[in-house]
Amino acid sequence: MKIGMSHGAGGELMQDLISDIILSNIRNTRVNGGVGLEDLDDGASIPLGEYEIVISTDGHTIDPLFFPGGDIGKIAVAGTVNDISVMGARPIAIASAMVLSEGFRGEELERIVRSMDAVSEETGVSIITGDTKVMEKDKLDRMIITTTGIGVVKRGEIVRDSGLRPGDMIILTGSVGDHGMALMAFREGFGYDTELESDVAPVWEMVEAALSTGGVTAMKDPTRGGIANALNELAEKSGVGMVVEEERIPVKEEVLAVSEMLGIDPYEVANEGKVIIGVDPEYADEVLDAIRKTRYGGEAQIIGEVNSERHVILETRLGGRRILEAPVADPVPRVC
Amino acid sequence: MKIGMSHGAGGELMQDLISDIILSNIRNTRVNGGVGLEDLDDGASIPLGEYEIVISTDGHTIDPLFFPGGDIGKIAVAGTVNDISVMGARPIAIASAMVLSEGFRGEELERIVRSMDAVSEETGVSIITGDTKVMEKDKLDRMIITTTGIGVVKRGEIVRDSGLRPGDMIILTGSVGDHGMALMAFREGFGYDTELESDVAPVWEMVEAALSTGGVTAMKDPTRGGIANALNELAEKSGVGMVVEEERIPVKEEVLAVSEMLGIDPYEVANEGKVIIGVDPEYADEVLDAIRKTRYGGEAQIIGEVNSERHVILETRLGGRRILEAPVADPVPRVC
Repeated sequence: MKIGMSHGAGGELMQDLISDIILSNIRNTRVNGGVGLEDLDDGASIPLGEYEIVISTDGHTIDPLFFPGGDIGKIAVAGTVNDISVMGARPIAIASAMVLSEGFRGEELERIVRSMDAVSEETGVSIITGDTKVMEKDKLDRMIITTTGIGVVKRGEIVRDSGLRPGDMIILTGSVGDHGMALMAFREGFGYDTELESDVAPVWEMVEAALSTGGVTAMKDPTRGGIANALNELAEKSGVGMVVEEERIPVKEEVLAVSEMLGIDPYEVANEGKVIIGVDPEYADEVLDAIRKTRYGGEAQIIGEVNSERHVILETRLGGRRILEAPVADPVPRVC
Repeated sequence: MKIGMSHGAGGELMQDLISDIILSNIRNTRVNGGVGLEDLDDGASIPLGEYEIVISTDGHTIDPLFFPGGDIGKIAVAGTVNDISVMGARPIAIASAMVLSEGFRGEELERIVRSMDAVSEETGVSIITGDTKVMEKDKLDRMIITTTGIGVVKRGEIVRDSGLRPGDMIILTGSVGDHGMALMAFREGFGYDTELESDVAPVWEMVEAALSTGGVTAMKDPTRGGIANALNELAEKSGVGMVVEEERIPVKEEVLAVSEMLGIDPYEVANEGKVIIGVDPEYADEVLDAIRKTRYGGEAQIIGEVNSERHVILETRLGGRRILEAPVADPVPRVC
């Protein structure tokens, strides 16, 4: 068996690889009964005294390094801050390991480091340790940044992606497909003709607004594989189904245009500044209001409701119903 | 300015790169007064309640992936466990982010994951979360593993690389140059003719033995740049000098042989299972005995003494004295 691009693109093929080769060969996968490796959540946790330390790690191989709306540095820090956030933990620190290709330009590195610093400053998350390696130029294309985030939450208050219950409302914090489509359009050379930008941004402010309102039962950020993947993961892990309404899922005009031109479903591509939040119905309107008051949450919507069935059902604009399946892989590789 | 191989090989060039481009552009570098980015220690720390969380991250680009004595999986977990250990913290968990080249063979990946598991099992350190990405085969040579370690120590008991005081004894836990020379010999094609193996191993048992005896003032594991780099870093950061005796520094016959054949100084190449420990002289013999009783510490030696001068002085076998300088870079690139 050989590794293919789709093994790293989210979706089912990646999950098979992880189960068959990685999980089946590792014996010690959790600490003190915290969230562990085989939970395949956005991160793991280590209960310690009255706290729970939340850890998440992500290798960033995005191509191109600079794109409309951001660069690899911004996505590396924001993406990891987001993985910590959706576990319900306040992100506090980042460890950053860079591997650079020989010949990489110092000016580009500086630009990337400044982007990392900007997200660090915006979120109050410190970059506390790092590592730098260099590979021969024929062995690595430009650079990889692996960021590991550390967050803290009061013991017992962690939010899992398996916590949805029938009756919960599903909140989506904004429009979908922006990141994946912006990258794809840029790669195909018509990025400059559109207004389309990646949505890469830290989601902590929105998450904090939701958590402090109350009633949050589950969260996930829809990155690789898009909302199609994230909604299905949430449903499967929680052992529930849900109905979501197409007309309530915001998709920008430009995203739709690129989507149609390339034949790529905007629900299946990565977002980098959005969260899907399951909320107790009693709190749903209040949580929605709180999110809408934040910097990135103005277009948040309640997009659906959890039920006790087994599928993610999409109610289309025309009133039809279809199963929204998890993609086999993100159709746009190397976007995060 | 363009990045060269030597910018990632330990030593002065790497320190310049880090200071000029990375440190000067990042504003938030520590949390709660813990050890932070600009301390350039083996890791960072986050004080939390009665504990201090220690974090260290390392990208592993080693070439070849499989070598006498280990493979990239073993070095990824052991190396990170070691960075946590030398901060005086008990390593408890690892986060692992893999980037694989398209076409990478599943059987090789499985072998590597099993090596990671073996070190995890030996040390009791759990692998609690991970990430998998795939890059096109012309963009990445085989694989990179970035491991981030999490350790815990009682608040105030962290060990720094800046803690040496005049009068302290310097303990080295075993022979030097094994890893770098084994890799170099193997690359040059005469690896199979020698008994030479990498020393890659977790050092926590030795560190724990030293800490529980008492009197430890500073620690560092001499990886990139070898003991020449590590001794100079310890001295510089502590604002002290030291005299070390060549005849007390164990170097294996095979290491010397390869060293002479290739013209590479064994003091300047990476070790992956050794520690340099500064100890209060009253405790030195007892710490030495404790280390010698551990699995990897049988050949530990007191190699020198700290003074209030400013250099690392090597007393040669012939009774001469010379300054042992930090190398500009590890002369054997991509070995860890």
